[in-house]
Amino acid sequence: MTTIGELGEDAILALFVPRLPESDATLLGPGDDAAVLSIDGDLVVSSDVLIEGRHFRTDWSTAADIGWRAAMQNLVDIDAMGAVPTALQVTLAAPSDTEVDWVLGFADGLREACEPHGVGVVGGDLSGASEIAISVTVLGETHGLEVVTRGAAAPGDVVAVSGPLGAAVAGFALLTAGVGLDLDAVDLFRRPRPVIGAGLEAALRGATAMMDVSDGLLRDASRIARASDVGIEIESAAVPVHPAAQEAADALGVDPLPWALTGGEDHCLLATFPSGTLLPDGWTVVGDVVDGYQGIRVDGAVPEALGWDHFGA
Amino acid sequence: MTTIGELGEDAILALFVPRLPESDATLLGPGDDAAVLSIDGDLVVSSDVLIEGRHFRTDWSTAADIGWRAAMQNLVDIDAMGAVPTALQVTLAAPSDTEVDWVLGFADGLREACEPHGVGVVGGDLSGASEIAISVTVLGETHGLEVVTRGAAAPGDVVAVSGPLGAAVAGFALLTAGVGLDLDAVDLFRRPRPVIGAGLEAALRGATAMMDVSDGLLRDASRIARASDVGIEIESAAVPVHPAAQEAADALGVDPLPWALTGGEDHCLLATFPSGTLLPDGWTVVGDVVDGYQGIRVDGAVPEALGWDHFGA
Repeated sequence: MTTIGELGEDAILALFVPRLPESDATLLGPGDDAAVLSIDGDLVVSSDVLIEGRHFRTDWSTAADIGWRAAMQNLVDIDAMGAVPTALQVTLAAPSDTEVDWVLGFADGLREACEPHGVGVVGGDLSGASEIAISVTVLGETHGLEVVTRGAAAPGDVVAVSGPLGAAVAGFALLTAGVGLDLDAVDLFRRPRPVIGAGLEAALRGATAMMDVSDGLLRDASRIARASDVGIEIESAAVPVHPAAQEAADALGVDPLPWALTGGEDHCLLATFPSGTLLPDGWTVVGDVVDGYQGIRVDGAVPEALGWDHFGA
Repeated sequence: MTTIGELGEDAILALFVPRLPESDATLLGPGDDAAVLSIDGDLVVSSDVLIEGRHFRTDWSTAADIGWRAAMQNLVDIDAMGAVPTALQVTLAAPSDTEVDWVLGFADGLREACEPHGVGVVGGDLSGASEIAISVTVLGETHGLEVVTRGAAAPGDVVAVSGPLGAAVAGFALLTAGVGLDLDAVDLFRRPRPVIGAGLEAALRGATAMMDVSDGLLRDASRIARASDVGIEIESAAVPVHPAAQEAADALGVDPLPWALTGGEDHCLLATFPSGTLLPDGWTVVGDVVDGYQGIRVDGAVPEALGWDHFGA
């Protein structure tokens, strides 16, 4: 197998770039000092970094899985604003003994995630490194609509999620335990499948605050509570547990509810809506926005742990 | 000293974000799922990755120097299109024992480089890692002007650079040798000082192709030659050697011309102009665009080595 150190940057790019998805918004794609895009309305932009051994393991996920996940968790950040994703910039740093096929598989995963949404990869950078480090910046456009931030949830609103939770972390638990590796949760850990466009639909229905659940429902709900200066009451019995999480929990003999409450990386959306709003298909009410305190309570009590800290031990 | 692992992500962001530069184009800054920017004309976007031990050494450069360089090499990519930089997205991955002060110094360097140009840092991501990995995506706007690519140099054009070359690699040579550490080249290695706006001015004067010199004059000229399907003749005696490179060469007893020909990271601009164009102040003609072959020649001969490969041994 040829490594990227043997092949060299220009030759890798000559193989890599043609595998990337293209976008109608692209006026000038990869290969120059910068790419040029047509943007309708305001620009919406977000970035995520993925580090080998922290955000992914190359023995648990293929390169294409990792490319898929890197793209999808960024696309959903734009959707979570009620905007439309247009393009990605991707930087990849990898050890010189990384196989060229791995890098090309990574490009394939980016394409598989982006192409159905008309999103292109318009540029980026490649470098050597001693561990794989991926950074994705996603660009989107508002088409003249107002974005939905985290900061405008109001007492009286309902709190809802766009789909069932806990599948990705359940898959992580199965991989860690080395059991049930053929269960759906493992696939959903490798390739989360949020519905891109759910955020735009929620925005059009009048969502007052919105974000994607990347660090767990409780931690992310606490962020909306802080940004909006409100209290959020979560009713744990109302939180929809993903069937794949239930299946994994059965295999491991555990309760899946903690996964649904604190597991991230399903990338469903969490939003608040004025009471009485007819929610879009697939959404489930899980609580209420209240006044009187700032923060979250679960079944009336302050939860002991919220979720994941990216620098934690 | 407190480390980032001790402090945790949210507390670091509470210190980090207020140190970042702001931009008038920012409609929504850091802290939500995405930032929102107003863009005039088309969007211009580019990314660079910087890896500890490859693109910088923490014993050679302060955190602020590294932040400065990460910002500046991106700003110049937008300038090299003849566009105007507006904002940066920055991801930073670092070991958990990195001092918080280092991370805050990095933010200071970003601000020092961006603020004079009205460029904001509007978002990004922080993560743990086993080595420091920085990825910067720069966003710019065309204000309705045509961008200048690498692909439209034409036989008969002159080839010019926006300033003297070789200072950054001369500083690298001094640091490697451990001598002359008080010379200007060392400072210019740590903080390259391209003139942001030189590219827009060149575009307005009719530059036909343009890029910034990041991997060395010869390698980057060969990229314009390939993209434009032309030959480029460089006259080595015409290449302006930076006074700081000359000073460093004197200290080391070497010839500075190879630095000016193959050293990158000064981030001056390389552009082609129709013959007879009155060049902007500071530009020097270093050669001609010709037909009859595709590639570059230096003093009439094919050069043996072009410069730097990011995956090379």
